[in-house]
Amino acid sequence: MANEQIRAEVLEIAQAAKHASAELGQKSLDERNRALLAMAAALRAHTAEIVAANVQDMDAAREAGTKESLLDRLMLDDARVESMASALEDLVALPDPLGEVQEERELYNGMQLKRMSVPLGVVAVVYEARPNVTADAAGICLKAGNACVLRGGSMAAASNAAISRVLHDAAVEAGMPKGCIGSIASTDRAATDELMQLHGTVDVLIPRGGAGLIRHCVECSKVPVIETGTGNCHVYVHESAELAKAVSIVLNAKCRRYGVCNAAETLLVDRVIADDFLPGALAELAQRGVALHCDGIAYGIAEKLAESGADVAFDHADESDWETEYLAPEIAVKCVSGVDDAIAHINRYGTHHSEAIVARDEAAIERFLARVDAAAVYANASTAFTDGGQFGMGAEIGISTQKLHARGPFALKALTSYKYVLRGEGQVRA
Amino acid sequence: MANEQIRAEVLEIAQAAKHASAELGQKSLDERNRALLAMAAALRAHTAEIVAANVQDMDAAREAGTKESLLDRLMLDDARVESMASALEDLVALPDPLGEVQEERELYNGMQLKRMSVPLGVVAVVYEARPNVTADAAGICLKAGNACVLRGGSMAAASNAAISRVLHDAAVEAGMPKGCIGSIASTDRAATDELMQLHGTVDVLIPRGGAGLIRHCVECSKVPVIETGTGNCHVYVHESAELAKAVSIVLNAKCRRYGVCNAAETLLVDRVIADDFLPGALAELAQRGVALHCDGIAYGIAEKLAESGADVAFDHADESDWETEYLAPEIAVKCVSGVDDAIAHINRYGTHHSEAIVARDEAAIERFLARVDAAAVYANASTAFTDGGQFGMGAEIGISTQKLHARGPFALKALTSYKYVLRGEGQVRA
Repeated sequence: MANEQIRAEVLEIAQAAKHASAELGQKSLDERNRALLAMAAALRAHTAEIVAANVQDMDAAREAGTKESLLDRLMLDDARVESMASALEDLVALPDPLGEVQEERELYNGMQLKRMSVPLGVVAVVYEARPNVTADAAGICLKAGNACVLRGGSMAAASNAAISRVLHDAAVEAGMPKGCIGSIASTDRAATDELMQLHGTVDVLIPRGGAGLIRHCVECSKVPVIETGTGNCHVYVHESAELAKAVSIVLNAKCRRYGVCNAAETLLVDRVIADDFLPGALAELAQRGVALHCDGIAYGIAEKLAESGADVAFDHADESDWETEYLAPEIAVKCVSGVDDAIAHINRYGTHHSEAIVARDEAAIERFLARVDAAAVYANASTAFTDGGQFGMGAEIGISTQKLHARGPFALKALTSYKYVLRGEGQVRA
Repeated sequence: MANEQIRAEVLEIAQAAKHASAELGQKSLDERNRALLAMAAALRAHTAEIVAANVQDMDAAREAGTKESLLDRLMLDDARVESMASALEDLVALPDPLGEVQEERELYNGMQLKRMSVPLGVVAVVYEARPNVTADAAGICLKAGNACVLRGGSMAAASNAAISRVLHDAAVEAGMPKGCIGSIASTDRAATDELMQLHGTVDVLIPRGGAGLIRHCVECSKVPVIETGTGNCHVYVHESAELAKAVSIVLNAKCRRYGVCNAAETLLVDRVIADDFLPGALAELAQRGVALHCDGIAYGIAEKLAESGADVAFDHADESDWETEYLAPEIAVKCVSGVDDAIAHINRYGTHHSEAIVARDEAAIERFLARVDAAAVYANASTAFTDGGQFGMGAEIGISTQKLHARGPFALKALTSYKYVLRGEGQVRA
């Protein structure tokens, strides 16, 4: 598609969403909830059509030699469509994020000030592989009174088109304004670039996907961005740690799932306990097929494990290992000289996502929790808990690694802004 | 200065601020307040030096033919230095924005979750003419535990350098970390461009100044921006308005001060009351020397005023008048066909800053307040109240016209983020 056509498509969808957002923002909680129920019902009613579209995507992806783990993320069957539908229904039970009076006071001159929560307006979401994001994002945006512009990955193009068409038509049928759920069909990267130009039409851009996509959005977008997801997370084992607990936390943070942003990518260990802790910890990791990128001390220990007959993949870590989010069965291992050294390493190489200390020493814990600059800091627990559901927040739209507006898992409330509403009786300023 | 040198200067100052921010964020409220008092005392002690530096700026500005209103903004005398000092002291009385427990709960698995307010880290402020912003911004950033990087306008270069040096040295003397108040000496525009590249070092960029500066930052910055200040504000006079009240509000919103962002730039009037309202209102505006950019109906009324001997400057408005923030004794005047027409005009041409309706009809008021998309919406009061002090918030750092993070006047609280602090006893995720 020529760039002119892409520009026209993106602009048309975004302007329709802007137009829709003015009406959508005025809909009552009941009206929005009824639309969510209608959207869930429509997904169920159109399951066959959605799964058929997904088969097209799957066939094309297989032909292109896509690896199994990605194919699994792409695949939709009846059960997965059902779970998209029930996720929409779950949103109905959540309280209304709109119309909340956040502040209320009478000013010195008798004017009445209220600060009220209002929708953001138009939320653009740019995402990759998983087609369920289409339904999740459309639902959460609508619950908060926002129109959305969705731009999924090319691999799921047919699935996303089918899902968003079904959702849009059901929402409109239920009384929501036309254009309230926009989906960009073009899978050309130029479409994302166009979207990022639309300052004034799109109110916020949320990229969900790999580090490359997110960096591109942060660097190029004129629309405000909520940066999500990149997670170079650490588990730091302090000399005071209970070692069995530390091993279990490291294994959970690294091995529970490899492809998630809250997985640990580097293990830091106090040097003074390296000989006590690392042989057992590294053996357990190796046994689960995790490759070890080691500093000098860890390398020596891995070598001994290998000599004793264990099946260990290991090499010497270099600077790039401290920076890498593997999203794979690999981990960097480094010895440090205490809590301050660990904090310095994390604040230098981390991505401000999730960081854990395992320790019994309360002063070390306090120092770590206070000084590590991250969305979520843990004492004696796995980084794997950084997740809206685990935090008791309900459906999240992403995990923010920036400090403006939303940090960590963010959900409905982060999809609102506020306005000051002032009522007077003719007051003027002196 | 060559671009290489500018880059090196900006990078050095920003990295020093980043380094300082880690320590500064750990300082207690008492320590930060003591530093603010020391900074105020130092301004007083160095008044002569600061005023002497300002004389250099004033001389250069006069030589360059700068107009009187700008010279007045630039000028510092003993009284103005004193008022900078007392503004710093006023910050001491404000409550600590840090360490606030915003949420606290036990998760399903016994983990303890707390959401705590924390500093943003490094706040960059790019501003124009007024040198008092140097002290205001440095003080408010420090109160919230942030290091700052200040980049003032070239016209005030000597004044800003003197003020920031005095403030930095006093803060360090009082125990704050070196580099906590950074000031970029280079007045080349390339310095701002460099600053905008420093994603990861600078946490937020706040531009304060003209529309051109703000647009440039929004379009080019890789660092998250809080957009401030552009105010194409409207007063809409509904057919139900009390006319004398409406005239007084229009005059206050337009004429109280011309160069401020909360000043009204367009007057909208219901067509059915144009003949009752406009002759008096336009005569009052003309009497104050306000030029009128009129639609057809208003032009006819202005013509009659002129024929009757009044001194009226008026012309035909075109599209560009609806878009213009005059910041001058000029106003656009347009008749509309009711509240929806007024809302549509405002949402199309406004800058989402401050918008007012004058009316007695409660339904019209409700509709206007709910549907106008702006930081502050007023019923029966002047737009001139959009100001942190007037809203009872204390010193503001700017007025945000975006929807992310902060909207409207924003102050200490907007200079914080939060982190999730989680404590467990070895919990791992299933």
